Amino acid sequence: MPVRPPSSSDGYHHGDLRNALLKGARKLLEERGPSSLALREIARRVGVSAPSAYHHFPNLDAIAVALAEQGAAEMTECLAALPSGNKSRLLRVGEAYVAFARANPALYRLMFGEGFPIASRSGQAVRDLRRKARDTIKAALADRFPEADLSIAGLFLWSVVHGLALLVIDGQINPEDDADDIVLRVLQLSGKALARP
Amino acid sequence: MPVRPPSSSDGYHHGDLRNALLKGARKLLEERGPSSLALREIARRVGVSAPSAYHHFPNLDAIAVALAEQGAAEMTECLAALPSGNKSRLLRVGEAYVAFARANPALYRLMFGEGFPIASRSGQAVRDLRRKARDTIKAALADRFPEADLSIAGLFLWSVVHGLALLVIDGQINPEDDADDIVLRVLQLSGKALARP
Repeated sequence: MPVRPPSSSDGYHHGDLRNALLKGARKLLEERGPSSLALREIARRVGVSAPSAYHHFPNLDAIAVALAEQGAAEMTECLAALPSGNKSRLLRVGEAYVAFARANPALYRLMFGEGFPIASRSGQAVRDLRRKARDTIKAALADRFPEADLSIAGLFLWSVVHGLALLVIDGQINPEDDADDIVLRVLQLSGKALARP
Repeated sequence: MPVRPPSSSDGYHHGDLRNALLKGARKLLEERGPSSLALREIARRVGVSAPSAYHHFPNLDAIAVALAEQGAAEMTECLAALPSGNKSRLLRVGEAYVAFARANPALYRLMFGEGFPIASRSGQAVRDLRRKARDTIKAALADRFPEADLSIAGLFLWSVVHGLALLVIDGQINPEDDADDIVLRVLQLSGKALARP
């Protein structure tokens, strides 16, 4: 009779269970929104006991922070791996930003603290993403604006993509309209404010 | 011994209790965020039994919709009663919009469905506000853009004020900066995109 390798509770190895719980949490998040996250339900879906889940995530805030960090890491990757093309770099950054939010609506809302203010404030990866995103934007704007105006220009652009992404995922645009086209046109209009003087 | 006038349960008259519950709910909302709304806690704060509260609001969604409608009505009033001054009308609309969100951060988030997607979708006052806000914006832009571009220009402006308001109330701007000044400068930059060609 073969001897099974030692494993932690519920048949999962330590790192595997953590990943399985995160995966289950993310699925629950996108299915039912941030306010529906519950550690017992996540454990149930993964097929382990609640105490096993608590071993990895002592509370819901810990899960929320881990999800927000995962989202931030994926988003950083998305913005770094822009498709090439004829469009301006800023336009491609804007499109990739809104596309990420549309593909992961509940995760995106969670990353900005929906239901869990701590998820927006305490995660290192979330803070890193913001710094990187700000740096990317500033670098792309550096030859258009004097240093003193760069941070306002960056905040303007962030406001547009953040607001637009949320309005789109919140269903505030006409469902008969082509969302991709609308996003492109709003970003093109934003570009006018960022044109070289 | 004086005879007390007849009243509904718990000593409140019908309309009074509804208002008292809404007031208690709004206080709880701003203190602890949308995800902390709970009908029993609201009833407790108002000093009535849970069944009395259920009589007015059968569930939390009903409270959320009523709060979102109240917020929408107040916001419509805010945008209609703009301070006069030298600034352009669009600038004053933008400032009033962001100021409302900053004064009522949790309510503003609720109005866009945080924790309660239904609050953003089913309230008549919320839908009315959006139509009115869109009409106000379109009217102010009508002499700058051809009809075909008006809705994109309006969505651009809405994205800027929505995104900016949320980033500010989410604590994403440097706390040492003067928020009023930053809002003004971002709105002025947005105006460049909306300038007459």
